[in-house]
Amino acid sequence: MRDPEQAPRIHDVAKLAGVSVATVSRVLSNPSIVAERTRLAVEKAVAETGYTVNVMARNLRQQQVGGVLALVPNLANPFFSSILAGIADALREEGLSLLVLDTRRADTGSPTGGIRSYLTRSRADGLIVLDGSLDPALFSQPSCPPVVQACEWIDGLAGPRVLADNAAGARFAVEHLLGLGHRRIMHVTGPSENTLSQSRAAGVAQALAALGLAPVARMEGAFTLASGHAAAAALMAEPERPTAVFCDNDEMAIGLMAGLQARGLRVPDDVSIVGFDNIEMAAYANVPLTTVRQKRAHLGRRAAEMLLAHRAAPKLDEELILPVELVIRQSTAPLQGA
Amino acid sequence: MRDPEQAPRIHDVAKLAGVSVATVSRVLSNPSIVAERTRLAVEKAVAETGYTVNVMARNLRQQQVGGVLALVPNLANPFFSSILAGIADALREEGLSLLVLDTRRADTGSPTGGIRSYLTRSRADGLIVLDGSLDPALFSQPSCPPVVQACEWIDGLAGPRVLADNAAGARFAVEHLLGLGHRRIMHVTGPSENTLSQSRAAGVAQALAALGLAPVARMEGAFTLASGHAAAAALMAEPERPTAVFCDNDEMAIGLMAGLQARGLRVPDDVSIVGFDNIEMAAYANVPLTTVRQKRAHLGRRAAEMLLAHRAAPKLDEELILPVELVIRQSTAPLQGA
Repeated sequence: MRDPEQAPRIHDVAKLAGVSVATVSRVLSNPSIVAERTRLAVEKAVAETGYTVNVMARNLRQQQVGGVLALVPNLANPFFSSILAGIADALREEGLSLLVLDTRRADTGSPTGGIRSYLTRSRADGLIVLDGSLDPALFSQPSCPPVVQACEWIDGLAGPRVLADNAAGARFAVEHLLGLGHRRIMHVTGPSENTLSQSRAAGVAQALAALGLAPVARMEGAFTLASGHAAAAALMAEPERPTAVFCDNDEMAIGLMAGLQARGLRVPDDVSIVGFDNIEMAAYANVPLTTVRQKRAHLGRRAAEMLLAHRAAPKLDEELILPVELVIRQSTAPLQGA
Repeated sequence: MRDPEQAPRIHDVAKLAGVSVATVSRVLSNPSIVAERTRLAVEKAVAETGYTVNVMARNLRQQQVGGVLALVPNLANPFFSSILAGIADALREEGLSLLVLDTRRADTGSPTGGIRSYLTRSRADGLIVLDGSLDPALFSQPSCPPVVQACEWIDGLAGPRVLADNAAGARFAVEHLLGLGHRRIMHVTGPSENTLSQSRAAGVAQALAALGLAPVARMEGAFTLASGHAAAAALMAEPERPTAVFCDNDEMAIGLMAGLQARGLRVPDDVSIVGFDNIEMAAYANVPLTTVRQKRAHLGRRAAEMLLAHRAAPKLDEELILPVELVIRQSTAPLQGA
C-alpha cells in the first residue's frame, strides 16, 4: 500500500485512470494528441491524486525540452532586450535556452493554434510572461508549464512575479521636479489600460499629495518615440505652459525632446524632462536624459531564477519588487526665476 | 509497381528500410529518440529513394510544428526588431508563429544540446538565420528544416538568402560626403570579420576609386553606441582631423555624435556624419542623422516568403539583393571653406 505521506507518483495516476504511464505522460505533455475521453480520465486522476504539484516539482535533470519561452509585447521596444539578456544569461548557466515570442505579432485569438500551441510542457519547460495584456485563460491548461510574470503582470493570473517598483520610480521623478521648484508639471503616460502606467500614475499622485498639490495635466502616449514627439504639440497647447514633464518611458522622453526643440524650446532651460527605464540611448540623447533606472538585466535574471526555483518547489504567490533609482543627468534644471 | 516518374513516398522509404512509416517519420522529425541502427537504415533509404527532397516539399497544410525559428546575433540591437516584425507579419498570414533565439546568449558549442536541439523539424518548420558568425555545420543534420539566410550570411552555407545591397549603401554614403567636398573622411566599421562590414568596406573603396582617391582612415567599432562614442577620441587623435565620418551603423553614428559634442565639436559644422540602417532613433537624434535606409520590415517579409516558397519548391542558391537608399537629414553639410 502507498504511504499516504509520500508524494503521488505517475503510476498512481495511471492506475486510477486505468491507462498506461505513457498515456499519462502524453496527456501532461501534449494533450491535443490524446483522445478526449482518455484525457478527461487522466486529468481527473491527476486532480484526485494531487499529482500536478509533483509534476511541477520535477527537477532540472528531468526537464524535457531544454528551453524556456518568453512572451514579450513588442520586440521592437529596446526596453525588453536587456531583460531578455538577463533571462538568457541565467538560463544558459543551467543549460537551458531562451526562445522569445512577440505576442503582438502572433495569433493569440485562435482557440488551439497560434501561441496557445506553444504553452505546453512539450514545447517549453517554463514561461516568462512580460506582457500584461494577455488573457489569463491562456495559462490555465493542465499542460501549461510553470509561469513567472516579469515587469508587467496580468490581472487575474496568480503565481510568482518579479516587478520593478514602478510607483516609487514615478514618485522619485516627480519629487525631483518639485524639488527643483516646478509646479506646472505634465505627465505623459503609457496606455491607460497598461498596469505599468497605472502604477506610475499612483506614484505621481503620491508625490503631489505629499505636498498637498492638485493633480497635474496628463497626456496618454503609447511608449513610442512618435507619441512622445506628438506630446510636444499638446504641451504647447496648454493654457499655462508646463515647465517640466515626466514621461512614462525614455523613448517618449527622447521623442518629446526632439519635438520641443523643433518648436524652438530648450531642454532643460525652458522645459525639464524626466524619463523612465534608463535605456542605453538615454545617456546618448540630445541632452543626456534624467531618468528612472530599472536594473533590467537583473530583473530578467531574477525572473529566470524564480522560474527555476518554482519548478523545484512552487511558491504560488511570491512577489518580488525590485528597487529603482533616479539617475540625474542634464535634462532637468531648477525652474527659471524660481 | 511504382511509377518511376512519381515522387518517392514515405511508404517507399519504410519498405526499403524494413521499418514502419511511423519510424521513418520519427527519424525525420526527431532522430535522437531512434536507435542508431534504425536511424542509419532509414537515412540510407531516404538517400536511395531521394525522399529528402519530397519531405522538404511537403506543403503548409502538412507542417508539423506551426512555427519558424529566427536566429539573431543580438536581441539588444534595435536593428533586428523591424526585420523580425516583418518576418512575424508574413508568417502570421500563413498561420505560422515566429520564435526568436539570441545566438550570442545561447549555448552553441555543445555537440548535441544548446541551440542544436532546436534545429530539427520536430522543433521548427523552418529557420531564418540572421547571424553570419555561426558554424555552417550546425545546419548539416538531415533533420534540419529548410534554412533562409537574411541580412547577414554564413560563408560556406549554401541556400537561399535575402540581403540588402550593403556595398551600394556604403558607396552612396561616401559619394554623398565626397559630393559635399569632403576629402578627409573616416570610416568607423563594424567588426572586421563581419560579412556586412566587409561588403560596406568594398563599397567605400569603390566610391574612392571612382575618383582616384586613396583609402581613408578606418577605425573598427562593434556596432554599439559605446564604440561610436569611443571613435570620437580616435578622430581627435588623427594628425589631420577628418571633416566627415561614415559609420557602419546608426548606433555608432549616434554614439560618435554625442562623443564629438562632449568635446566641443559641432555636427555638421565641424564634422559631417552618415550612418547606416535608418533605425527609428536616427530621425530623433541630437542632429537628425543622414543615413542609409534598409527597408528592414520588407527584408524580413521577403525572407519569410522565400522560406515558405523554399518549403514548397527548394531553390538552393537563390539570392535576393534588395536596394537601399540614402536619407539626407541634417548631420551632413558642405565642407566649410570648400
